[in-house]
Amino acid sequence: MSSELERVVAGIGPASASAVADALAHQARLTKPAGSLGALEEVAVRLAGSGGVCPPAMPAPAALAIFAADHGVHAQGVSPWPQEVTVQMVANFLAGGAVANAFAAQVGASVTVVDVGVAADLPAGPGLVVRKIGYGTADLSIGPAMSAGDAVAALEAGISVARTLIDSGARCLITGDMGIANTTASAALISAFTGLDPAEVTGRGTGIDDETHARKVAVVRRALSVNGIEPGTEPLRVLAAVGGFEHAAIAGFVLAAAEARVPVILDGVIAGAAALTAQALAPASIDHCVAGHRSAEPGHAAALRHLGLRPLVDLELRLGEGTGALLAHPLVCAAVRVMHEVATFDSAGVSEKPM
Amino acid sequence: MSSELERVVAGIGPASASAVADALAHQARLTKPAGSLGALEEVAVRLAGSGGVCPPAMPAPAALAIFAADHGVHAQGVSPWPQEVTVQMVANFLAGGAVANAFAAQVGASVTVVDVGVAADLPAGPGLVVRKIGYGTADLSIGPAMSAGDAVAALEAGISVARTLIDSGARCLITGDMGIANTTASAALISAFTGLDPAEVTGRGTGIDDETHARKVAVVRRALSVNGIEPGTEPLRVLAAVGGFEHAAIAGFVLAAAEARVPVILDGVIAGAAALTAQALAPASIDHCVAGHRSAEPGHAAALRHLGLRPLVDLELRLGEGTGALLAHPLVCAAVRVMHEVATFDSAGVSEKPM
Repeated sequence: MSSELERVVAGIGPASASAVADALAHQARLTKPAGSLGALEEVAVRLAGSGGVCPPAMPAPAALAIFAADHGVHAQGVSPWPQEVTVQMVANFLAGGAVANAFAAQVGASVTVVDVGVAADLPAGPGLVVRKIGYGTADLSIGPAMSAGDAVAALEAGISVARTLIDSGARCLITGDMGIANTTASAALISAFTGLDPAEVTGRGTGIDDETHARKVAVVRRALSVNGIEPGTEPLRVLAAVGGFEHAAIAGFVLAAAEARVPVILDGVIAGAAALTAQALAPASIDHCVAGHRSAEPGHAAALRHLGLRPLVDLELRLGEGTGALLAHPLVCAAVRVMHEVATFDSAGVSEKPM
Repeated sequence: MSSELERVVAGIGPASASAVADALAHQARLTKPAGSLGALEEVAVRLAGSGGVCPPAMPAPAALAIFAADHGVHAQGVSPWPQEVTVQMVANFLAGGAVANAFAAQVGASVTVVDVGVAADLPAGPGLVVRKIGYGTADLSIGPAMSAGDAVAALEAGISVARTLIDSGARCLITGDMGIANTTASAALISAFTGLDPAEVTGRGTGIDDETHARKVAVVRRALSVNGIEPGTEPLRVLAAVGGFEHAAIAGFVLAAAEARVPVILDGVIAGAAALTAQALAPASIDHCVAGHRSAEPGHAAALRHLGLRPLVDLELRLGEGTGALLAHPLVCAAVRVMHEVATFDSAGVSEKPM
């Protein structure tokens, strides 16, 4: 590891046990039947633990960072979309015309697009941060996707973006991604970190037929084999071998947020693969994450199980961009708002159930 | 039926087939893979059909109406909570201290509390609408919960509240409820309208033990038998026999919204039982409804299946008050916002997948 990355990892602490205990005790006094807010109660407790304070700080304003990159494995025919869609969609984000923009507007989140490895030069413009590590990764099915140095540089790009957003006032970070063929790299990372077979974690991305899916599974299997990835392979080597620049950057983004004790809402399968990387580097980083949603990709459910996270939104989205995480932001805010604004049985004069 | 109720029912039209077709065609041109927004695509299409226009109007501002009432069946020991919690919680809503208030603040919805049958007189105050039909229903396990005339009066109270909120500018109505023991009446309505056995649709409400649950199932079974409810019993007679004043009012609220082509987000099991009543009176009314969430009550899942609605939020909430529907409001807005703000492949210069 670089000394910068090492410092971030060393600075990550776990959930505060005392804040978690305070949050559980406060929940029990609120004017609602115990447990009646279901999964949202756990979210509120989780954010108290992350921030080390009860009630937890409102996770607003939120900032979405969409990390964009291309993938050499596109050459293997794993996606029906042409590679230039990555750069076209970056332009769409910057023009405000994508679904992520509409959802960000709905929840009041800022949108930052980060070029960590798009296979073309992008015109400078407001909202675009250029931290390009390369013009797309190499083809992970014939060798490492990137060098170890590039993996660290991409991680540090994500760290830098997170810090800038937090310094600008963001109190919740939201992961987003764009990169044609990035579900293939995600499947390889998820297989490597969970130990599950490629066939179990490789999905249909934004929409492929049976033949393409079979090819994609074979590509993932070959990638792990060619690169000598086995259970216990060192996490940075896994990342460099089969990850994408956006996976590395999102992992860094999660690590820096965790170090700052600012919650991160994870989007779909790309974020899940990146979070597995962050977990391998610093297990406590996941204490600062919320799973925004569960995508339709089978690998995402596997990643969430391994991370120990329960998704908040489950609507068969398979778009990426941060869309699922953005939808979860009001739910996370609502969970925290309860801790600030709801009366207790005592204060409201409401009878408690005789138990 | 009264002539007023008849007029509302006669005024309800189904989804506009042309607006639905326009919405489906527009979805296909947006810069996202086909189907990638999962269940949210159906919501946007549904709202286009309801309003008869594409893109559909933004469903904001939203107005929550919490219909509060008491239940004579409480005397059967079906809930561990004392009946006075209904009036205490009404005071809590009016003071802004309940979870529904926090969630409404989060999504920018107004809160109106409607006394349709609380078993005590409430002090007048801002935010409280008094349309009291009685001081709680009669015990449905020994005879009809209310008279046919009272059922119609409660339906009309809901119609009146919906119209007032729409006239005040609400573009989305959200159902809420408060009434200790109201999951028992809900289970009876759901069993009557779906034909399912009471044991399949009677849950644990806000939290009861096995013995109380068994008693609750027996009470629901007795209620249907004592009142002679059978498949095909006329809907208004079912409602009067085993419903609550808030079920009747919420059914009226749904019918009036449907007549005005303003979408309604349904909350949990009480709203589900009320919507089944509305469906029985006017099947097309459900074309104007969105299922906000699925509660932990087994009867709610059964009601949603019968209504043909897919819930948006599924977080094991079991609180009522409108909390699940409020959480869904930003998701519904996001679905509609996509139809207004997202670029098309043509306009954004994004390549379409070669299929």
